[in-house]
Amino acid sequence: MAYDPNNIFARILRGDAPCIKVCENETTLAIMDVMPQADGHVLVLPKVPAEQIYDLPAEAGAAALAMVQKIAAAVRTALAPEGLLIAQFNGAAAGQTVPHVHFHVIPRRENEPLRAHAREMADMAKLEAIAERIRAAL
Amino acid sequence: MAYDPNNIFARILRGDAPCIKVCENETTLAIMDVMPQADGHVLVLPKVPAEQIYDLPAEAGAAALAMVQKIAAAVRTALAPEGLLIAQFNGAAAGQTVPHVHFHVIPRRENEPLRAHAREMADMAKLEAIAERIRAAL
Repeated sequence: MAYDPNNIFARILRGDAPCIKVCENETTLAIMDVMPQADGHVLVLPKVPAEQIYDLPAEAGAAALAMVQKIAAAVRTALAPEGLLIAQFNGAAAGQTVPHVHFHVIPRRENEPLRAHAREMADMAKLEAIAERIRAAL
Repeated sequence: MAYDPNNIFARILRGDAPCIKVCENETTLAIMDVMPQADGHVLVLPKVPAEQIYDLPAEAGAAALAMVQKIAAAVRTALAPEGLLIAQFNGAAAGQTVPHVHFHVIPRRENEPLRAHAREMADMAKLEAIAERIRAAL
């Protein structure tokens, strides 16, 4: 399928839509998920226009995983979750809701079920406060 | 926590326990999950002794993601799932059941819920037949 250059992550990557940034380098952007499944839910976006894992060049994949590892370490330091889930969805049948490849980094706690994916908008001040704690741990 | 060299994936990597191999290179091993959450569920294991994503050296992470991408493409060719879920669990609170870092590559189909994680052993002949289809697509 042709890449849709107007998907929300493409717009964020172009600076045409706002985001709460956690970390950025030449190849990858990490932002807060505005509809988090748990507090501290971060998204890692490769900057290349790729819809699914199949479309992602190998170097972009390696760079994304490096950012995932960096974010994972910072989330652990900042928030001390009991567990950490890393997930990447390809296709609606797998739960993909935005057609730009992205990795979810989601803190997990015992007896705290994940909130529904892409359902409820977070409070932006609260999200920014969590982002600041994660940034400080990078 | 100290790495447990007797966990089942460490034993498989040493050749001390059996597995249904899908693909292997110097740094990474891909095998069929014997308790699959869906048909075609593959596990990608970095060969380094690392319990969680935090413990995985950057090069091992990049190599693992490259293998994940290779397996994803082969699973898509071989099994044509509607979606593909990639997941990596750190800590029991996130669903980790074996203390060696691993990536799940799980085909998804509409209206087919995932089976429970690490619950029911698959039929080995059926698993081998699926592995053979994935190998042929590598």
